[in-house]
Amino acid sequence: MSSPSASVPSAAASQDPGVAENPAIVSACVIVIGNEILSGRTRDANLGFLAEQLTGIGVWLMEARVVPDIEAVIVETLNEVRHRFDYVFTTGGIGPTHDDITSASVAKAFGVPCTLHPEAHALLKAHYAEGQLNEARLRMAHTPEGATLIENPVSTAPGFQIGNVFVMAGIPSVMQAMFESLKPCLTGGTPVRSVTLAVSLPEGTIAQGLGAAQDRFADVEMGSYPYRTGDRFGVRIVLRSVDEVLLEAAVEAVSEMIRELGDEPTRE
Amino acid sequence: MSSPSASVPSAAASQDPGVAENPAIVSACVIVIGNEILSGRTRDANLGFLAEQLTGIGVWLMEARVVPDIEAVIVETLNEVRHRFDYVFTTGGIGPTHDDITSASVAKAFGVPCTLHPEAHALLKAHYAEGQLNEARLRMAHTPEGATLIENPVSTAPGFQIGNVFVMAGIPSVMQAMFESLKPCLTGGTPVRSVTLAVSLPEGTIAQGLGAAQDRFADVEMGSYPYRTGDRFGVRIVLRSVDEVLLEAAVEAVSEMIRELGDEPTRE
Repeated sequence: MSSPSASVPSAAASQDPGVAENPAIVSACVIVIGNEILSGRTRDANLGFLAEQLTGIGVWLMEARVVPDIEAVIVETLNEVRHRFDYVFTTGGIGPTHDDITSASVAKAFGVPCTLHPEAHALLKAHYAEGQLNEARLRMAHTPEGATLIENPVSTAPGFQIGNVFVMAGIPSVMQAMFESLKPCLTGGTPVRSVTLAVSLPEGTIAQGLGAAQDRFADVEMGSYPYRTGDRFGVRIVLRSVDEVLLEAAVEAVSEMIRELGDEPTRE
Repeated sequence: MSSPSASVPSAAASQDPGVAENPAIVSACVIVIGNEILSGRTRDANLGFLAEQLTGIGVWLMEARVVPDIEAVIVETLNEVRHRFDYVFTTGGIGPTHDDITSASVAKAFGVPCTLHPEAHALLKAHYAEGQLNEARLRMAHTPEGATLIENPVSTAPGFQIGNVFVMAGIPSVMQAMFESLKPCLTGGTPVRSVTLAVSLPEGTIAQGLGAAQDRFADVEMGSYPYRTGDRFGVRIVLRSVDEVLLEAAVEAVSEMIRELGDEPTRE
């Protein structure tokens, strides 16, 4: 018997629906910065939000990394990913304490000094009462030279953009507000359409037919996500493509395959 | 005025309490594999669990990555991180469908064939009713040559270990059961002790004193996590170290600093 994996279409063909080759695809990487995520103290809530938001505006999140508050790691990671993806979004590490080293690290990655940003300085001066804008808080007005600010309507201290890198806070409510501020600056590619089919059959039953459908529709990404409700196994099939006509043809082909296996898929 | 960032201790000194230099430190990297996390369809629940578990047994999670179901990316990522960290844990992509390419990708990274594992085959034969173990399900019995199995008490199809890489399922309940199975195989380093101090002062008020304390106790990692309850700002200070005596001394020093600012820290 030949290995079942021999019949799998190549990953590049089946799981990367033209992203690498398609100039209409805009790619992104998220870097979550913070020891607290890696120690398990804090559960990250930013990646899921950004994934959903970026997908919604036609930006493909291609990778995410969680890195500790170590300057060398942040610099190396940034310099690797900012050349590989159209956009890079970072969260965390821009507060007033000694462990907030993102701004200085980004500056180092870009080879520019981290200096007091006059606009950010003015914002903080207006925000804090007389005598409250101490040296620690002034850290939050420092950005890599040449950066432009990202507005923070929640707690004033801004994020910033330099090149294709957008630097945001780690607190989810602040990060989300900053993302809303910068969103109009992003140019998405062709929006990705998605259809989900819920099927009341175990994944192993539909797998062969789904693989064949994926072979036939190489430009439609087909994902299979099993679920279990009590003793019942089911699977959600998610079909995604930038080509709506092709997507509908693939949905029809997969639905027909499911019907032949004795179930009626539900479009969610 | 000198830049406030000039007064920050170097990241390597302050935020990496001896990890790189200390042979007693055992390091790890988690790779979350799956388009569904990057598209925002599914919120990852595995990273937080693994972070907490690893910390609990004295393994330092130093980095995490979320990568798509693209073979070349998985292979490249694995080959980068498995040489840099003591342990690598992957989640996702070991089911029966065409998009489950983790086993084949791990085999490729290790330069070995992905073959039918006799024990895994026997497990699946015993689990499925006559005629149900089709070619798709047999994919789940394929592992890189030389791998040893990780038991799956939830749904039978096993994970596996090859070298320092542990390959687990993506469904949280299955992943957690697999982690429980493999946990006895892990050798942690000196356990990391952690103390949290809750302070009813804004982060910017304690930042300078905390930075000075961090300078004084370079081998105690001090993290500052602001929170907001209604109109009140507060901050939790997390101190972590492998050295308990040093940790208690640092906790005392930080507590004294907080008292001098007019607040009594609460040890949580």
